[in-house]
Formats: sequence, C-alpha cells, structure tokens
Amino acid sequence: MNFQSDNQSSVFPEIIDYLKFINEDSSPAYGADEVTKLATKMLTDLFETNLKVIFVSSGTAANSIALSSICPPYGGILCSDNAHIGGDECGAPEFFTGGAKLLTIPTDNALITEKKLITKMNNHGLHGIHEVLPSVISLTQASELGTIYTPDDINKVTHTAKKYNLRTHMDGARFSNACASLNVKPAELSWKNGIDILSLGTTKNGTISCEAIIVFNQEIIDDLERRQKRTGHLWSKNKFVSGQIIKWIEDQNWLKAARKANLYAQDIMVLLKKINNVTIEYDVDVNMVFACIPMIIQDKLRDNNVMFNPWYGKKNLTRFVSSWDTKDTELTSLKSIIKNITS
Amino acid sequence: MNFQSDNQSSVFPEIIDYLKFINEDSSPAYGADEVTKLATKMLTDLFETNLKVIFVSSGTAANSIALSSICPPYGGILCSDNAHIGGDECGAPEFFTGGAKLLTIPTDNALITEKKLITKMNNHGLHGIHEVLPSVISLTQASELGTIYTPDDINKVTHTAKKYNLRTHMDGARFSNACASLNVKPAELSWKNGIDILSLGTTKNGTISCEAIIVFNQEIIDDLERRQKRTGHLWSKNKFVSGQIIKWIEDQNWLKAARKANLYAQDIMVLLKKINNVTIEYDVDVNMVFACIPMIIQDKLRDNNVMFNPWYGKKNLTRFVSSWDTKDTELTSLKSIIKNITS
Amino acid sequence: MNFQSDNQSSVFPEIIDYLKFINEDSSPAYGADEVTKLATKMLTDLFETNLKVIFVSSGTAANSIALSSICPPYGGILCSDNAHIGGDECGAPEFFTGGAKLLTIPTDNALITEKKLITKMNNHGLHGIHEVLPSVISLTQASELGTIYTPDDINKVTHTAKKYNLRTHMDGARFSNACASLNVKPAELSWKNGIDILSLGTTKNGTISCEAIIVFNQEIIDDLERRQKRTGHLWSKNKFVSGQIIKWIEDQNWLKAARKANLYAQDIMVLLKKINNVTIEYDVDVNMVFACIPMIIQDKLRDNNVMFNPWYGKKNLTRFVSSWDTKDTELTSLKSIIKNITS
Amino acid sequence: MNFQSDNQSSVFPEIIDYLKFINEDSSPAYGADEVTKLATKMLTDLFETNLKVIFVSSGTAANSIALSSICPPYGGILCSDNAHIGGDECGAPEFFTGGAKLLTIPTDNALITEKKLITKMNNHGLHGIHEVLPSVISLTQASELGTIYTPDDINKVTHTAKKYNLRTHMDGARFSNACASLNVKPAELSWKNGIDILSLGTTKNGTISCEAIIVFNQEIIDDLERRQKRTGHLWSKNKFVSGQIIKWIEDQNWLKAARKANLYAQDIMVLLKKINNVTIEYDVDVNMVFACIPMIIQDKLRDNNVMFNPWYGKKNLTRFVSSWDTKDTELTSLKSIIKNITS
Repeated sequence: MNFQSDNQSSVFPEIIDYLKFINEDSSPAYGADEVTKLATKMLTDLFETNLKVIFVSSGTAANSIALSSICPPYGGILCSDNAHIGGDECGAPEFFTGGAKLLTIPTDNALITEKKLITKMNNHGLHGIHEVLPSVISLTQASELGTIYTPDDINKVTHTAKKYNLRTHMDGARFSNACASLNVKPAELSWKNGIDILSLGTTKNGTISCEAIIVFNQEIIDDLERRQKRTGHLWSKNKFVSGQIIKWIEDQNWLKAARKANLYAQDIMVLLKKINNVTIEYDVDVNMVFACIPMIIQDKLRDNNVMFNPWYGKKNLTRFVSSWDTKDTELTSLKSIIKNITS
Repeated sequence: MNFQSDNQSSVFPEIIDYLKFINEDSSPAYGADEVTKLATKMLTDLFETNLKVIFVSSGTAANSIALSSICPPYGGILCSDNAHIGGDECGAPEFFTGGAKLLTIPTDNALITEKKLITKMNNHGLHGIHEVLPSVISLTQASELGTIYTPDDINKVTHTAKKYNLRTHMDGARFSNACASLNVKPAELSWKNGIDILSLGTTKNGTISCEAIIVFNQEIIDDLERRQKRTGHLWSKNKFVSGQIIKWIEDQNWLKAARKANLYAQDIMVLLKKINNVTIEYDVDVNMVFACIPMIIQDKLRDNNVMFNPWYGKKNLTRFVSSWDTKDTELTSLKSIIKNITS
Repeated sequence: MNFQSDNQSSVFPEIIDYLKFINEDSSPAYGADEVTKLATKMLTDLFETNLKVIFVSSGTAANSIALSSICPPYGGILCSDNAHIGGDECGAPEFFTGGAKLLTIPTDNALITEKKLITKMNNHGLHGIHEVLPSVISLTQASELGTIYTPDDINKVTHTAKKYNLRTHMDGARFSNACASLNVKPAELSWKNGIDILSLGTTKNGTISCEAIIVFNQEIIDDLERRQKRTGHLWSKNKFVSGQIIKWIEDQNWLKAARKANLYAQDIMVLLKKINNVTIEYDVDVNMVFACIPMIIQDKLRDNNVMFNPWYGKKNLTRFVSSWDTKDTELTSLKSIIKNITS
Repeated sequence: MNFQSDNQSSVFPEIIDYLKFINEDSSPAYGADEVTKLATKMLTDLFETNLKVIFVSSGTAANSIALSSICPPYGGILCSDNAHIGGDECGAPEFFTGGAKLLTIPTDNALITEKKLITKMNNHGLHGIHEVLPSVISLTQASELGTIYTPDDINKVTHTAKKYNLRTHMDGARFSNACASLNVKPAELSWKNGIDILSLGTTKNGTISCEAIIVFNQEIIDDLERRQKRTGHLWSKNKFVSGQIIKWIEDQNWLKAARKANLYAQDIMVLLKKINNVTIEYDVDVNMVFACIPMIIQDKLRDNNVMFNPWYGKKNLTRFVSSWDTKDTELTSLKSIIKNITS
C-alpha cells in the first residue's frame, strides 16, 4: 500500500490514448497548434471567464514563472509557513524572481487568515527600503497540510491584500481536490474571489506532467511567453503537454478523480484513528491525512509494507496521501494490518 | 509539405505505447523509479562509459542547466555566432548562469575551428577583470546551419580549449543526425574527443519531450539535481520523460530515424538546386538545407503550400528541414511543384 | 541627542586629511596603487595572518559579495532570526547569490549556539533535493541586538558547522566593538576560531564608507575581484576607499573609538534603567541598548529631542546607539531629561 | 607622463575640503540629509528640469542599476559594439537585469546612427519569443572611442527608438567632456533630446567616486531606491558621496575641468601626428586620442616613461587619455621625447 504521494499515482488512460491520437498529425511547434487552442478553450469554459494560459511540466515551474510575472526582484512574497514554494522548491521562486524574498506568515494549519495577513503587514516595513517591498500573497489551495480555504476565506484575504497593493497568486497543486471537497466551481475558488493568477495543478490528479499558469487579471501585462521560453519551459511539441488537460477536463474526469481521492482519505483517517495514541493533526479536507503516530507503530506499519512519509513540524508526524487510483484493496489491506497491530 | 522544423514532426509510436505500458504501475516520484534507472543504463551502454544523466523537456533547459553547472556567473561562454544558445533561447543561458556572457566567435558556417578559438582568446582579456572569465566553450553538433564537426575537428577544438582551462559543452539537439551522417558512434562525437557535458536532444528526432543532460567529466561535481529542481525541470512522474529515451535507443531507432531524415535533406537539396538562381549556402550534412531563393520563387513555393522558414544572415536565405517522418509523397509533390515553377 | 544609529556618526578627521594627502599624486586605478597595498599590509598585521582583501562601500555589499563567493545558487545560508542579512538588506544576499535561501535559526538574543545549529540541521533535509543545500553559516559579531560571541562561542559553532560542510562567514559590521568589549585580538574573533571569510565593518566606527571583505580560508578560490567588478563595487580611484582603513588601524584608532562608544552605551543603560517600567531587554555588550519603554515615556523623550529608533520583536522595544563621537554633553542632557520625566 | 586613464587623475581639492566641512555635523543616514538634498537641487538646476537622482560609486553601478530599472529580464539592450557596458563591466548589466541580453550594433566609430538602429531592429525578431524583447537603447556620450553625438544625432536616434518602444539610456561617464566639446548645455544632451535616464559620471572628471543616476522620464516608476539598496550601493553616510557633486557643479568646475582635459587631447593628437606611420583613428572630440602606432615606436615611448594603453579593434591601436589635472610639463616632455624619437 503506497500512501506516500499523489505524485506517484498513474495517469488517466484516456490521456495517453489522446496523445497517441494527436500524434498522427504534425503540428506547428511552440504552442501554435490546434490542440493547445482547444485546451485553452476548455479552460476558458471551465473557469467561465477570459483567461490567458501557458502550460508547463511541474508545479515548481508554474509557481515560479507566475510569481516572477507579478513580483519585482526587490519584492516580497507573503506565504504560509508551510507553503510548498518556501520549503519544497529548492529556492526556485527566489531564482525565477531574481532574488525576491518569501515573507513567511506563521499559521496553525497552513491557512492564512485576514488577521494574520494584517499582523504580518504591521510587522513589516519599519526599516523602509531596507526591507523588501511586499508585492504578492500566495495562497495554497488545498494547503500542504490538507486544509482548505472556503470561497469566503479567499475573498477576505484577497480583499485585504489588495488594500496593501499585493497581487494574489494561488498555488493550486491540489486545486481540484479543493473544488471537490467544497463542491464549488473553479471560478469560485479563483477569480471570482480575487485571485489574479493561478497555478493549476493536474499532475497529482491524473495527468503526466501538465500544470497550467492561468492569468485572470488582465492588468498583468508581463511577457509570460518569454519567461516560459527563457526558463526552458516552452515545449517545442507543445500539444503533448497542453493536450493532457483536454481529457482531464472532459467528462469532468478531474472532478470525479478528485472526489474519489478525497473519499479514500476519509477512509484512511477513520482507520488510523482506531490506533491507540494516534492523533489526526489537521482537518482532512482533501486527499491527505496528517497523523502523529508513535514510532513503534510506524515501524510496524512499514514492516507490513504500508508506505507513507514522515513530515515536518511535530514529533512523529506522518503524511498519508490517497489518489484517484488508490484501490479498495489497499484500504482493505490497511484495515486488516491495523487490526492486527492494535489487537 | 511542411519543411519548417523537425520540431513539428511526430513521435515514434512505440514511445507512446511504452508510456501506456509503464502507466500500469505506480512508481516512486522524482526519478527514483526503475524506468529511469533503465534509461540511464541504456545511455551508459550507448555511450560506452560511465556517465551521470538527468532528463528535461526542452533543449533550452538542457543547454542552460548544463552551462550553469560549469560556468560561474562572472564567466564567459564561447560559442559560434549561429549558436542556438545565443540567438534562440531568449537569454536562458544568461538567466540560468546568473549573468554569464556569451562570447561569440564569428564563423563562416557555424563551425568553430581551433584557429578561430585561438584568435578569439587572443582578443579577449586585455582589460583583465573588467572582462568576463572565459570558462566554457559550447559546440553545436550538428550546427544550426546543418554543418557538422568530425571527431577530429572536435578533438582539436577541445584540446585547445582545455589549454585555456575551458570546460567543453556540446549542444546536441541534432546529435543523432550528426552520428548518422558521419557514421560514427556517440562516444566518438563526445567524451572520447574531449566533451565534458552533452545536451543530448531526442525531441527533434522522434520523442515527445526528452532531452538528456549527460555528464562525462567526473570532475564536474556541481549539484545538477538541485539545479534541475530549482529551475522547475524535475518532473514528479519522471518515468514519463526518461521512459521516452528507452524506446528511442532500442533497436537503434534513433539512428534509423536520423539516417532517414538526413537522406530526405539530400533529396530536397537536389530539387532546390534545379531552380534558377537558387544557391545552396552550406554543406547539407544532416537534415537541413539552407538555400538562398529569390523572393518571387519563395512566394510561388508558398502559394503551393510548401512550408519553410526564412532565416537570418543572408538575403533571401531560407531553411528546409526534413525529419524522420517526412514522407516520400512530400518529396514527390515538391518535385512536381518545382518542375511547374521552373518550367 | 541623537542615538538613532552609529551610521550617523562622523568620520575620524585624520581619515579625511589622509585622503587629501594621497590626492596629491595620481595613482594606478582599480586597486593597483600603493595605498591599497599598504592598507592590505596593515590588515595583514592587524589580523596576524595571510589574507586576501577587497574594499567596498557598504556592509550590504561586503556581506553579499562574501556570501556569493561561498554559497552556490542552490544553497542555504544559516543565520540568526535577527541577522542584518535577513531583515535589513532588501534581499541583497538572495540577489548576489543568484537565489540562495536564508535559513533562519530562532534565537532569544540573536546569538546562534552550537545546540541551535544542530537542531536546525536536524530539521532540514527531510525532503532531499527539494530543499536547498545548507552551505554557509553567517554569524553577526556584534549581533543586531548588541550581544556578542566569545572566542569560545565562535569556536564551538564553527567547529560544528564544519562537520556539516558549512563555510563560515562573519558579519562584522560592529566587529571592532566586539573586540573592545571582549578585550581580545581580531584574530581571536575570526580565523583562529574558524571563520573563513569576514565582512569587516569600519563605517559605523569612524570611516566614510569602507568595508573590507577579508578571506582567511585559502581554499576559497572564487574570483572575488570579478564579483566585485560585476556588482559595481570596484572603485576606479580605489585608494580613496582603501586609504580610509589605514588611518582607522593606525594608532589603534579603531579600538579607542570602539571602547569609547561601548562605554557610552553603559551610561545610557544606567540612565534608562532609572525610569519606571523600563526594561533592558538584551545584554549591553557593545554600543547598543535595547529597552522596552512605555509609549508615554517614549513620547516625552522625543518631545525633548532625544532621538532613538523603534525596533522589531517586542512591544515598545526601542534601540539607543552610541558611537565614537557621542558627546559627554549628550549624556548630561539625557540624564537631566530623564530626571525631569521621572520626577 | 601618464596618459593611461582619466580614472587615475586626482580629485578637485575643494571636494575633499567640503567633505571635511560636512563631517563636522552628524546627519541622518541613507540619503535623508541636507547635503544630499542640496546636491539634488543643484542637479535640478544644472539640468533645468525636475528629476529624480540617486548617487553611487562607480559607473558600472550607475549603468547597471539604471538599465535594470528599464529593461525586463527577458529584454534586450541595444548598444554600440564598443560600449563600456558590453566589454568592460564583466557582465554587470546581465547580472543586474537578471539576464537581459546586450544586442550589439556594429559601428565604425562607436556611434549609433538612426540608420544602424533601424537595420538592427530589422534583423531582430524573426524568431519571435525565442529572441529577447528589445527594450532599451544605450548611447555612450562621449563614446568609448572619444567620439560624440550632437544634440541632433541624439534626437534622431531616440526618436526612432521610441517608435520601437525602446527606453533610452545614456552612459555619460564622460558626459561633461561632451558638453564642453559641443559647447551645449546638459539638457541638450539629455532629456531635451529624448534621453529617459542618464548615468552622469563625475569620477573621471574630478570627484572621488560619484556617479549620479538621473531619471528624467517620470513614467519610470521602478523602485530605484530599493535597487540601490539591494545591490549594496546605498551608502549609510550618503552625504559623502552626494556631497562630492556639489563642489563639482559649483562655479562650473566640471565644465572648466572638462574643457581643459579636452584641450590637452588636441595637443597630444598634434604631437602624435608628427610621428611617421602614426595614424589617428577616430575624431578627437573629447579627452582621448586613439592612434595606431608601430610597435617599435610604442616601445620607445614606453622606454621614456610615456604611459598609455593598448586598445582593441585594430593592429597597434593605442589610447592616450588626458584629464583635468594633466600638466603642461607632461606635454612639454612628451613633445621632446617625440622629437627625439622621430629625429
């Protein structure tokens, strides 16, 4: 049973079939092809608004290109103390922006509230130009701890952010899981509630390597295409990256997959809770369960081929991740292993 | 008939079938999977030496990550006046290296000779630390003008380069075409003749998006993996990029494809030569034909749906590119169109 | 009375006289002059060891050039949560290094202990190459909170740091104040206890704009001169920056000035302590006093032209800084103002 | 006799006296002082327009900070093939801009004409976003080869530049020499003829280390102060850099000094012309003479302690530079040495 990461999950078979299908013709390179146009069209429909989009192959690239288009090199990017851009991208945002600084906001559960944002801003700037200029706030939806912002949460934070002249970015590596959990439309979690630019992740939820940078705010006039090119993220055979999202959107495949993954996380939570001295540390809003598990139990689980990751922040903290291709049999096995351990 | 670019060509069907096959299992993320191990093994066998390799999705990424691992920010990268890194990567090498400078060597045919290298070095450095430190020479094989270095050519240039303490990089976007043209093994065009690090392109010759950065020189101890990560070029589902090269190498598919593309270029050259006032400007060593074509003829060709690109450097210069999936019927059509035009 | 910053203090008159003196001759540009050679010689004598030195005009430049010479772009720089490089240099270290990351160590008093270093290292790296590579530790002597490391403190931290393959940097903006306070020689606070590279500040203690980057560790072979040039920090008339340090070192002017400044801080502390509800928050080891002062008292002080800065970190925290040119009359005035306020 | 560089010349004595004078008071740090205000006022008067100014200590810093404020990282900076920013700043513009590219315009005499600009633009952009976006043109006044633009020349080039949406920068390291040579006011050579931002050099003409970045175009809203800070170019005791320009402007000292230097260059030219087989290669418009001198003659001159620099671009090319503190006796000596050599 592998609950290490949704990054390890497989790809919707219809996506690979589609790549096979579009391979039958040659196409203009670098995004001037019909597949990319269709993908853009489908995203426009999905988000119910005009948008600009480019496709890249990693969440790190999506986040960093997006941030560099809205943050000057002397700027600061406000983010949660658990943000992926802070701890898991090996300094990519700093590199892409030319040295901007992440301004970390302490949180309990990886979610930034309006109040925490105000506190942070009040504690920044006393030293004037000796400090970076706060320029962007980046929200992670769902967060790295599996918690989520409601549309209203997002609205409050972005509303305040704009008073401070901050641009608003959303790291949507698990955006679809958040939509599924809240049962709201993508527009509600993005532009309708003040998000300027979104890194829409699909890789963790069924594609090969497709992350879309979606610009909603038309005031962002930065040359994203040249940024994409000069960071090496413009594929020559671009249809093979953009094409992935077509089958991801079609038939609401993305939503069905996210719902399925989320449900499995609930199952995992229920099972883990049955173990003595195991605590669930954060709300299980999407497809991740964070549990503090005594090391002796962790060892037993691992001895039984239950794979999961240790995590930062608390003693014995672990992360279990489900995905669209988690199998019922995996849950059944986990159940019986836990039964054996606890009996 | 589309002779615009080998970037527009299709993908070996067996590659997509293989992606479908490896999708059946989940795998460890970020390159710790068996597919990536096999791909590395196959490259090791192909190059007949120990090597270190990472896989990225564009030639620009491969070149820039490679260059940044061997050139300090205050360094200079010697390259031909036609190098892709100079004119077609929107400043990516400058960005990835933290501001290193391309030191352009004027050439007649995009090939750097030992003599030209010496002349360049003799004309650099008079102003000491006010000039960048020449640190790397980058050779493009095959060149942007479709010409190639023999193993002996490479040996002479790299031998001299090392006297100047330069590291040696090869931009091998069309490396396979050069191997096919010269009928030599990959090792001969790389480490056996002094290349430290190679950007091995496969995308123009049949894969979706797989470019391998191959380190031969074990003195290069830079943390390439972290560079890959922080530039957003580490795929989570890494097997889908590395896996492409497995079927590319298997059965010498790469070599067969390159040979085929090269032969078509010969055909194109022969046809173009038949037109009055058309001149072939550079040796047609691989799959590209550069011809100066009177504008009135160019218009007629385009009116007949013959697609090709205008090029820099000479009046009326054009580029025709063949690829592994060029069709006999395209050549037949081109032949009859030219016949009509010229009659 | 101005206790805002030692940055506002004046310059040793003999320094300006010396600039006048050396202006009588023309000299080779860019540091190839006799004045710069003499300055280097005097630093060599002062530090009792061979060293390499370059002279720049701000502490930010000194720190950032030094850090960029020992930290790769994918690296991390460990520093205190109060470090000047973190909060007061507007992202300069990130910019100069090409995007390296500051890894902040929480402290009580801005001093990093061996134990805190170990804890930090133990909590870093779980995510492998997704996190930056810890490469450097930077100690601030004296710290931004006016506290200091003893030679033994430094030794313990650097000894541990080297086990982790970290290079060691010291931000010595107030290095002379620390020497004066501890009554130890410069060598004791630097290379003899494991410091690889030092930003030696002199501007806050009597020069116009002279900060020396001093390399002790001869394994650092980075081209510092080219970094100096390409960051715009190589003066053409270099003797006017290097010459400043000659009169600073001569006759132990630096040490006398630092001692004087330190003593005034003791006086300030004593006076502030007399006010009800005023607390001294950190050890007054050098020329800075950090006091929490009720806002009503702060207002009264300011109404009486007592100038001092608000500070981060605690409610009502303020900073009073003395300098080599603080005057007895300023202290007398402060004394009588406080007497009035408190009576 | 030292004709190597005006960088080696001395400083107006009144400047050092003034530094001594302003040292008598303490002042607010980082440019909030009265001296800096006065310097700004005097520049405003000198240029007869509203302007924004920051002061740094090297021409490289002035150029690079200015360029980074008007060129995006994906941009291109058009400049002459002899521009200092291209060949003598060790990649500083690339570094400060985050990797922008210098787009070199070939010239005969280091001057860019409207026609050459148009030709360059016509030969750029065929490959779309794969090439950098031309964003800035930088003119050097006087040029590195001692030639100058008339006000009308500048007007024509900037007028055309703006049609291409280019911002206009002037590298005015020897701006005062150009004003003196043309006998025109500073406004004529800058904003009145389309210059957006100027690096005004004073160091080569009598100050210690003062280069002013002057923004004329109020549409440039980039945060120059934060750029100054994060590049380490904000002096804490800022009055000592800004104060230099006060005495430089006062009494037209700058103009008198530049005229004097220019006249000496005429004398040098006349003397060199008397030597057989010596050719003067470029118009001697300011304080520099470029002469091709047979190596045997060069050796004889050097044997007689005549110091001058070899130069790039032609066989046996040399550069002689005069300055405001060149002495009549140096010319007399040069005259007699040449007489001896040629007799």
